[in-house]
Amino acid sequence: MTDPIDYARYDRIRPIRWTGDTLELLDQRKLPFEVRYIPCTTCASVAVAIHALIVRGAPAIGIAAAWGVVLAARELDASGAGAGLDAAAAAERLEPAMQQLNAARPTAVNLAWALQRMRRALSTAGEDWRGVLLREARAIADEDLAANHRMGKLGAGLIANGSGVLTHCNTGSLATAGFGTALGVIRAGVAQGKVERVYAGETRPWLQGARLTVWELQQDGIDATLIADSAASHLMKTGQVQWVIVGADRICANGDTANKIGTYQLAIAARYHGVKFMVVAPSSTVDMATPNGGKIEIEERDQAEMLGLGGTRTAAEGVRAWNPVFDVTPSELIDAIVTERGVVERPNRVSMQTFFGP
Amino acid sequence: MTDPIDYARYDRIRPIRWTGDTLELLDQRKLPFEVRYIPCTTCASVAVAIHALIVRGAPAIGIAAAWGVVLAARELDASGAGAGLDAAAAAERLEPAMQQLNAARPTAVNLAWALQRMRRALSTAGEDWRGVLLREARAIADEDLAANHRMGKLGAGLIANGSGVLTHCNTGSLATAGFGTALGVIRAGVAQGKVERVYAGETRPWLQGARLTVWELQQDGIDATLIADSAASHLMKTGQVQWVIVGADRICANGDTANKIGTYQLAIAARYHGVKFMVVAPSSTVDMATPNGGKIEIEERDQAEMLGLGGTRTAAEGVRAWNPVFDVTPSELIDAIVTERGVVERPNRVSMQTFFGP
Repeated sequence: MTDPIDYARYDRIRPIRWTGDTLELLDQRKLPFEVRYIPCTTCASVAVAIHALIVRGAPAIGIAAAWGVVLAARELDASGAGAGLDAAAAAERLEPAMQQLNAARPTAVNLAWALQRMRRALSTAGEDWRGVLLREARAIADEDLAANHRMGKLGAGLIANGSGVLTHCNTGSLATAGFGTALGVIRAGVAQGKVERVYAGETRPWLQGARLTVWELQQDGIDATLIADSAASHLMKTGQVQWVIVGADRICANGDTANKIGTYQLAIAARYHGVKFMVVAPSSTVDMATPNGGKIEIEERDQAEMLGLGGTRTAAEGVRAWNPVFDVTPSELIDAIVTERGVVERPNRVSMQTFFGP
Repeated sequence: MTDPIDYARYDRIRPIRWTGDTLELLDQRKLPFEVRYIPCTTCASVAVAIHALIVRGAPAIGIAAAWGVVLAARELDASGAGAGLDAAAAAERLEPAMQQLNAARPTAVNLAWALQRMRRALSTAGEDWRGVLLREARAIADEDLAANHRMGKLGAGLIANGSGVLTHCNTGSLATAGFGTALGVIRAGVAQGKVERVYAGETRPWLQGARLTVWELQQDGIDATLIADSAASHLMKTGQVQWVIVGADRICANGDTANKIGTYQLAIAARYHGVKFMVVAPSSTVDMATPNGGKIEIEERDQAEMLGLGGTRTAAEGVRAWNPVFDVTPSELIDAIVTERGVVERPNRVSMQTFFGP
């Protein structure tokens, strides 16, 4: 059976480009008004780009970090310190760079996962450890795109004809190697003619929905409607939405899922309205070492992000804000977790262990 | 027993001032960065100010509209058309002005209610109908402030010591003749030492929480923390909040309540977390002629409000948004409706009829 989805038609944007010696990162802080790639030639600049949200989205962060390790190796060589190093010595010399990359964002597990893959590749490499690192980074990116295509089909398989969907944050091409996770499912659902209405929450404070998701869909000719985060329940009540579809930054051993702030609230509202709730993420997001959501460190960012918007101050001087950027959705509110390995419906400790256990 | 609350200490802002011949409206579009009163000397300018959100908040809109009728009467006189009119003839001549004011915002019932009071006052007036209108407008404002003081005490009576509260939109001095409805309860709770933590939701798209509520509380020395609307559930999960306290634009005969978009979502989240939910509004907000929330017209405003923020565009050109500015919270999610007449706990058709029926 041929694959009926014309993936390329619905997927035009690439946030990460490797030129052969430079990592180019699409500056997502400037979107949708300026499409500009920032060239990175050092590991430190990649770490800064991750921390500053130039590149964002859990899978994209992992990919960028992998390329950051490649750049760190080249820096070693450029400084002369790489001469004569074997793989084991290189691993030792590259560890500080790995740590620097890992510290750039605390919540997404893909970052640590991608670095662990680079470490493992290095640990079995021979003399060609530079080539091994390069190929591993490329593989991480290529596998991510393939996983997204697979998740798109699996997730769309859960959606009935004539459905409306609501998504949150940006989980699209911009957040991955391409196609997207949750947004990949929506793309596949649109391509298959099943999804007729796409709604995107604005996603304060950083407005990934308003700035990125609806722009990205627009580039691909997919019609979408932007809503305030606080209008989601009112929208569900109108019956226009059958699925809430979101990504994940970390999925625990019991299915509890950390994702962008506001996801938890959508899950509560979806359950109240009988709307289904789907989490879509590559299996690299699954962290079987974290038993449940109570163990996840929730990143809190600068309160200034909540006191203004795009350089426009919105609150008075002296006002205080609380700015947690993730929350945890308990597994009992999740109807399906979709990874490239398959679908876990009504996830819990047992079904997750069966699927992702050793 | 003396009243233990020093109301004035916690209530410094006035959004509506009558100078004797001019209505001065604090331009709430410019807050918190510019404190500027716009002088209105015509009924039409008051209608425009209501529509443009220069004055906002259901009770404040009603008060402004009442003064708009006073201005309309003065315009009649200034044009010479008022000469020799008796009250009945004046009522007829003023009706188009009433209609114009009534059409400025569709959802808040207080607007229609205040205009109806002005009509009734006119219908029983004699020769001094001009004085009657003036006194009626002043009475509407004075009674609103008194009602807010009373509601503050009643609502605070429901709150336990050491509580945290979350509010939405702006229901404070800025939305009323003074002190506020939901924010009045919070003021009273702070004054009595019961409320230890105050959180305010940003309230997209118009940011009444970020621009108005935390500023207003700051003026009165009340510490408050701003959050993204989508962070409310995560906040509730932390156990920092015991009550969600909101205002209302219309309360139906069965207790269903229309209020700022996002209120419904907070009510669902509150119930999920076992957090209590309180609606605070003057009895003029109760509309026994509307049987339930399904019958309420929900105002949808220009989608441009969702595509940008304070002159800063946030979404790409060509993007579409849906911008309903109110939603309906069903009475089964409401623990208490507080009016100046008393508290209706667990409101339903029967308890509402007992309290507010004829």
